[in-house]
Amino acid sequence: MTDWPDLAGRLEEGGHVLPVRVYYEDTDFTGIVYHGAYVRFFERGRTDFLRRVGIHHTELAEGTHGAALAFAVRSMTLEFQKPARIDDVLLVRTRLSSLKGARVKLDQVIHRGADLLVSATVTVAVITAQGRPTRLPPVLAEKLAGHASGETSVE
Amino acid sequence: MTDWPDLAGRLEEGGHVLPVRVYYEDTDFTGIVYHGAYVRFFERGRTDFLRRVGIHHTELAEGTHGAALAFAVRSMTLEFQKPARIDDVLLVRTRLSSLKGARVKLDQVIHRGADLLVSATVTVAVITAQGRPTRLPPVLAEKLAGHASGETSVE
Amino acid sequence: MTDWPDLAGRLEEGGHVLPVRVYYEDTDFTGIVYHGAYVRFFERGRTDFLRRVGIHHTELAEGTHGAALAFAVRSMTLEFQKPARIDDVLLVRTRLSSLKGARVKLDQVIHRGADLLVSATVTVAVITAQGRPTRLPPVLAEKLAGHASGETSVE
Amino acid sequence: MTDWPDLAGRLEEGGHVLPVRVYYEDTDFTGIVYHGAYVRFFERGRTDFLRRVGIHHTELAEGTHGAALAFAVRSMTLEFQKPARIDDVLLVRTRLSSLKGARVKLDQVIHRGADLLVSATVTVAVITAQGRPTRLPPVLAEKLAGHASGETSVE
Repeated sequence: MTDWPDLAGRLEEGGHVLPVRVYYEDTDFTGIVYHGAYVRFFERGRTDFLRRVGIHHTELAEGTHGAALAFAVRSMTLEFQKPARIDDVLLVRTRLSSLKGARVKLDQVIHRGADLLVSATVTVAVITAQGRPTRLPPVLAEKLAGHASGETSVE
Repeated sequence: MTDWPDLAGRLEEGGHVLPVRVYYEDTDFTGIVYHGAYVRFFERGRTDFLRRVGIHHTELAEGTHGAALAFAVRSMTLEFQKPARIDDVLLVRTRLSSLKGARVKLDQVIHRGADLLVSATVTVAVITAQGRPTRLPPVLAEKLAGHASGETSVE
Repeated sequence: MTDWPDLAGRLEEGGHVLPVRVYYEDTDFTGIVYHGAYVRFFERGRTDFLRRVGIHHTELAEGTHGAALAFAVRSMTLEFQKPARIDDVLLVRTRLSSLKGARVKLDQVIHRGADLLVSATVTVAVITAQGRPTRLPPVLAEKLAGHASGETSVE
Repeated sequence: MTDWPDLAGRLEEGGHVLPVRVYYEDTDFTGIVYHGAYVRFFERGRTDFLRRVGIHHTELAEGTHGAALAFAVRSMTLEFQKPARIDDVLLVRTRLSSLKGARVKLDQVIHRGADLLVSATVTVAVITAQGRPTRLPPVLAEKLAGHASGETSVE
């Protein structure tokens, strides 16, 4: 998509950053962003981190790398520090925390300017079309590991 | 689901009625229900109308009635009259307007008490797994037609 | 809402149970329920637990109990065990875990029949219209505490 | 937001274009984009068209241009032609169709490459904080009219 070079965010030292605009759909009647909206923002960040690294949902699903694979969220911890509001531009940052067999752990934060709004740790499993956990194919594991930060644990 | 007898709403003279509660997720920062939320409420109404008539998405998808089928929304007209708010109980009413070959037309309205909030006309196509329009199997067309109102046009 | 007696679920020994139907809007292209949808289901469960106990968002916001108050989610831990699918009927169970000053902790689980699908622990803060933490008014704290389970910690 | 120059799309001859990525959250179990998701995409397009023209929801709500104002969707017609899928990049185009007193009409289309996927006509009303229709302040009407296309009707 050369016309919109930043649409999938950018890789940066130790991870990935994605800008997300707050629209009507993300807010609730209390005037701030609905807490469930951040879960969607984090998912967009993870997806575009993988996209920038060269791992695509459609290729995984079509079995381009062997058996059909998918990522499934296994657990997630969220800390809500400050609220975002309509029209805000948020930055979703995603870092690989560890990569062990079928488990990928990621650290994610959402900032508005210098303010930390929400942080998350997310554990994602690599699964087959039948839902069984499986190792990430080595070619993809290498792509991910290549964007690990100093603190990333890879086995 | 005998434990929750009203979960899929009720068939009534000439159609179906489904109660829908307004939650945080449905509102936006202007303090009222986000206009896109009504599109979801109407879809719930159509789905539960079909469910009460005896037509299930999963059976259609699994080809219980011949080839695998699905419903796809082709067009929709929405009129927003009055806003709904958090905690409101809304009634989504769905009536079959016409049933012709691969096309099903439905009239839908959302009320809060006596107030009409939103109305919609929706055209849904019956499609095969390959996305081609196809006639609704006679056994299902009969089920639907059996709940037509006096103004319904069936061919 | 005498016409739809179960719309806000039911209080039960040690907490509250709410039935939730899975619709199109809750699923994603992998064929199962989108992980973010459970966050919405849990919020519906908490809201209807409060409603059944006699605590309403609108009354809080309007200052019926003194200053205008609201609940804000501070942290949330989610464990995804098994996937839900279209047409499923899920039961969202909510129990008060602890009630201390401005903090309310809740344990929540989602089952489909006997299967545990997702569990969550949620910390909610009582805040003023200015966003500052404040104690829940005693009359409301008593309502909540009255539905505590044996393991609930109340200070 | 100089760091992400395209985040709000671009003004173009006769209107505005916004790129939108399809994420998990936008799809449903049938494997394609949920029809209600396009309603959110169109709203993003309208909001960013107004933003690029120099009209901001927050300024309107705060009464920067006189009384506090908001836009409310009054009616919407949607035609679904072809489905979008996960990972697709869609272009949402928004054109002013007419501007008459309190009513703004917009034509919107969503393309994927050369394919037209969905089209919409949307009527939006300018309302006061009390929900009454009101004329758009002249300074804002001029901003909008300045980006009208040849077919736009302005009174």
